[in-house]
Amino acid sequence: MLTVPHRLLHGPGPSPVAPSVLEALALPCIGHMDPAFMGIMNEVRAMMQQVFKTENEMTLACSGTGSAGAEMLMDNLVEPGDTCLIGINGVFGGRLTDKAKRAGGVVHNMNAEWGQVFDTDEILAKIEELKPKLVCFVHAETSTGACQPFDKLAEATHKHGGLLVMDCVTSFSGMPLEIDGWGVDAAYSGTQKCLSCPPGLSPVTLSERAMHKANNRKTPCNSWYLDLALVGNYWSGSRAYHHTAPVNMNYALHEALSLALEEGLENRFARHQAVHEKLKAGLIERGFEYASDPDHSLPMLNLVKIPAGVDDEAAVRKQLLNEHHLEIGGGLGKLAGVCWRIGIMGHGARDENVDAILTALDAVM
Amino acid sequence: MLTVPHRLLHGPGPSPVAPSVLEALALPCIGHMDPAFMGIMNEVRAMMQQVFKTENEMTLACSGTGSAGAEMLMDNLVEPGDTCLIGINGVFGGRLTDKAKRAGGVVHNMNAEWGQVFDTDEILAKIEELKPKLVCFVHAETSTGACQPFDKLAEATHKHGGLLVMDCVTSFSGMPLEIDGWGVDAAYSGTQKCLSCPPGLSPVTLSERAMHKANNRKTPCNSWYLDLALVGNYWSGSRAYHHTAPVNMNYALHEALSLALEEGLENRFARHQAVHEKLKAGLIERGFEYASDPDHSLPMLNLVKIPAGVDDEAAVRKQLLNEHHLEIGGGLGKLAGVCWRIGIMGHGARDENVDAILTALDAVM
Repeated sequence: MLTVPHRLLHGPGPSPVAPSVLEALALPCIGHMDPAFMGIMNEVRAMMQQVFKTENEMTLACSGTGSAGAEMLMDNLVEPGDTCLIGINGVFGGRLTDKAKRAGGVVHNMNAEWGQVFDTDEILAKIEELKPKLVCFVHAETSTGACQPFDKLAEATHKHGGLLVMDCVTSFSGMPLEIDGWGVDAAYSGTQKCLSCPPGLSPVTLSERAMHKANNRKTPCNSWYLDLALVGNYWSGSRAYHHTAPVNMNYALHEALSLALEEGLENRFARHQAVHEKLKAGLIERGFEYASDPDHSLPMLNLVKIPAGVDDEAAVRKQLLNEHHLEIGGGLGKLAGVCWRIGIMGHGARDENVDAILTALDAVM
Repeated sequence: MLTVPHRLLHGPGPSPVAPSVLEALALPCIGHMDPAFMGIMNEVRAMMQQVFKTENEMTLACSGTGSAGAEMLMDNLVEPGDTCLIGINGVFGGRLTDKAKRAGGVVHNMNAEWGQVFDTDEILAKIEELKPKLVCFVHAETSTGACQPFDKLAEATHKHGGLLVMDCVTSFSGMPLEIDGWGVDAAYSGTQKCLSCPPGLSPVTLSERAMHKANNRKTPCNSWYLDLALVGNYWSGSRAYHHTAPVNMNYALHEALSLALEEGLENRFARHQAVHEKLKAGLIERGFEYASDPDHSLPMLNLVKIPAGVDDEAAVRKQLLNEHHLEIGGGLGKLAGVCWRIGIMGHGARDENVDAILTALDAVM
């Protein structure tokens, strides 16, 4: 039998998985068309609706990782020639741009320094100028730890018939998120961040406005696997067979969502915030500097500058992994070699985990 | 905690999962960039190469179900305007056609009765006529139980610069399959058939000839998530981060592949064949008729006509499920209400499972 090392997962995800989620993962497999599995899908959907804070009927677990969820939205919501406005302030805005272009979108980017966010008024002015069919920003940039305010973007987007799309991969279930309250038309997340479920599924939600667009395309979407006209019928409506859903992964997602809702979302957000503050205080005490905008930093993803004097940052991360079983994340894209990313997500957002992180850093630095 | 009913999985998949595969699934999650996970990926690849009987370097577990693997091949190997020859003798040839068209392919179909296979000489004549860039057939049609011979198609395909592509979702690890021996350029499978791993990953392999085409496209492929220029670098070569791999699903795949290779492929094929013969004898004794070509029937997927006198076949399947915990498959597509599909795959291909199937059928019929 395979042996797997024990790791303290404090990079950008996957995060530490709760024992009951692993237990759920190992429950006996049943059929993807079994009425019992349909019941589980219904419960998974209802719980995702609660975490997304939405009444969207079209809320489902896309059968791929967060990147597949992103592609599901771009493939279904972008038609060839559509003007798209996408913000890039980290790696993931760039990837969304790539996906929108492959779907035929004419993409206009706004750019901000990595670690910073966009000024809402500047976004609104750009929406007025471009009248885009799709406006897409990253709520929680996993590559930079920046949190983009989303609460004032919907009205301007909708005025011109556009859709407001959000990446909430890292924020989902870890901080306030209001899909309906903020007027977001479509959002996607991943299971392996603040939900603390292994990677493999992507929670996705779409408003009626978004589904109207998806259902009235002039041309079929690029993807058969991610086509909401087909996947949607499996998750809702006729329950027609589309693909063989990752059954056991949906069990794990069910348990992870249950844990989040049992704790209470507000309590969970407060826990992430409190643990973030403890970590931040410890890091600053040790001379670390944060690299993300202090007014718009995520609690669960801490972007810190690699301290002066660290010549071989990869070697330090390797030492943390090998000697202290601690995984932290290197910088991504242009932040590679410049910053580290320390995640405190979901089941791992606990005081004792902060202590372990700081102790390990003390030992190697 | 979620409760899940016990089921005897004898539909078209998922199949019964071995206990050690569920144990592997529940091992602690580690990072997708962890050197230990890279080691696991290497072992998964090496074992998939053995089961595919290929030396293809580009052999990987696509992070989605079998349908995603199919789409990965179509998206990467079909360029807009490419002539494609795709056989339809069941549901999955139709789906491949849909995917090839979305990738911009000009698809010519050969059609055969569902349950029948194509005559090799007719295929060769069609290849000579069309000189297609892509020739794609389904080795093991999960919707019909038919097994298409593949051993004489490569030379004609390659003569015109074409690629030979195979769906081996249901045959992989359950019957002879010779990717290199038959000159197949690209093939995809699923984990939940004869491997008896839960659904969620798709074993995929591509020859150097196929990768040359994928790497020299004039336009980027439709999909970012499935783009082999990107995914391939994560599974091989530079090991660059692409997406967060479904870590625990790869553990399960590792264990399922280990079990298959420990048993020995030839032994495993013989076991499937012997159990098929036992099941077939029992079904025929009870008056069932097979609906697939007797000379080209799959051992692991048994297509039988619903007996005369069964008015409500869905009710019978429901009774089998509720009273005997037995899942068998309904007919798919044009075979819905006409045939049943009884799978004996992987861990479920055992004498005692055949006994349980026949006992349950006796009780309800």
